[in-house]
Amino acid sequence: MKAHVWVMPKTTVLDPQGQTIHHALSSLGFAAVKNVRQGKFFVLDLEGMTRDDAQKQLERIARDVLANPVIEEYRFEIVE
Amino acid sequence: MKAHVWVMPKTTVLDPQGQTIHHALSSLGFAAVKNVRQGKFFVLDLEGMTRDDAQKQLERIARDVLANPVIEEYRFEIVE
Repeated sequence: MKAHVWVMPKTTVLDPQGQTIHHALSSLGFAAVKNVRQGKFFVLDLEGMTRDDAQKQLERIARDVLANPVIEEYRFEIVE
Repeated sequence: MKAHVWVMPKTTVLDPQGQTIHHALSSLGFAAVKNVRQGKFFVLDLEGMTRDDAQKQLERIARDVLANPVIEEYRFEIVE
C-alpha cells in the first residue's frame, strides 16, 4: 500500500522558505506569481495491514512524527 | 489561479531524509512502513495569465528554480 502525506505551515504561520522563493521568482521576472508556500511531501510504503489500520497508523505518523501540529497542518491519502 | 508543484529525489538517488524518517518510524514501532521518501511541495498563487501561459511558466519555474533536475524530478498541476 502506498500513502502520500502533505505537511504545510499553517496559514497563520510565517513561511520564510516560501517567501524567499517568492522573492527569487519576482527577481527572475515571474511577476505573475503572487504567493508561494512551501511544505513537505512524503511517500510511504506500507505492508501487511488493512486499509483501516493503515488509516489509523498514518494519522499517528503524520501527527506525531512528520508534522509539528503547533505550526503545521497535515493531510494524507492512501493511494493504492 | 493556484498551482501545486511536487519535487522528489529521483528514485536512483539516495534520500537520506526519507531513510532517517524510516528508521525513526521503525524504532517507534511502525513496522508496517517499509520505505519513506521525502520531497518538497509548493503551492503557488498565479494571477493575470491564461492557463496555457501558466502551464509554460510553471514548467520553467519547476525545472529552473524549484527542482535540481540532476537529482530531482518534479511534476505540477494547476488546481483552480
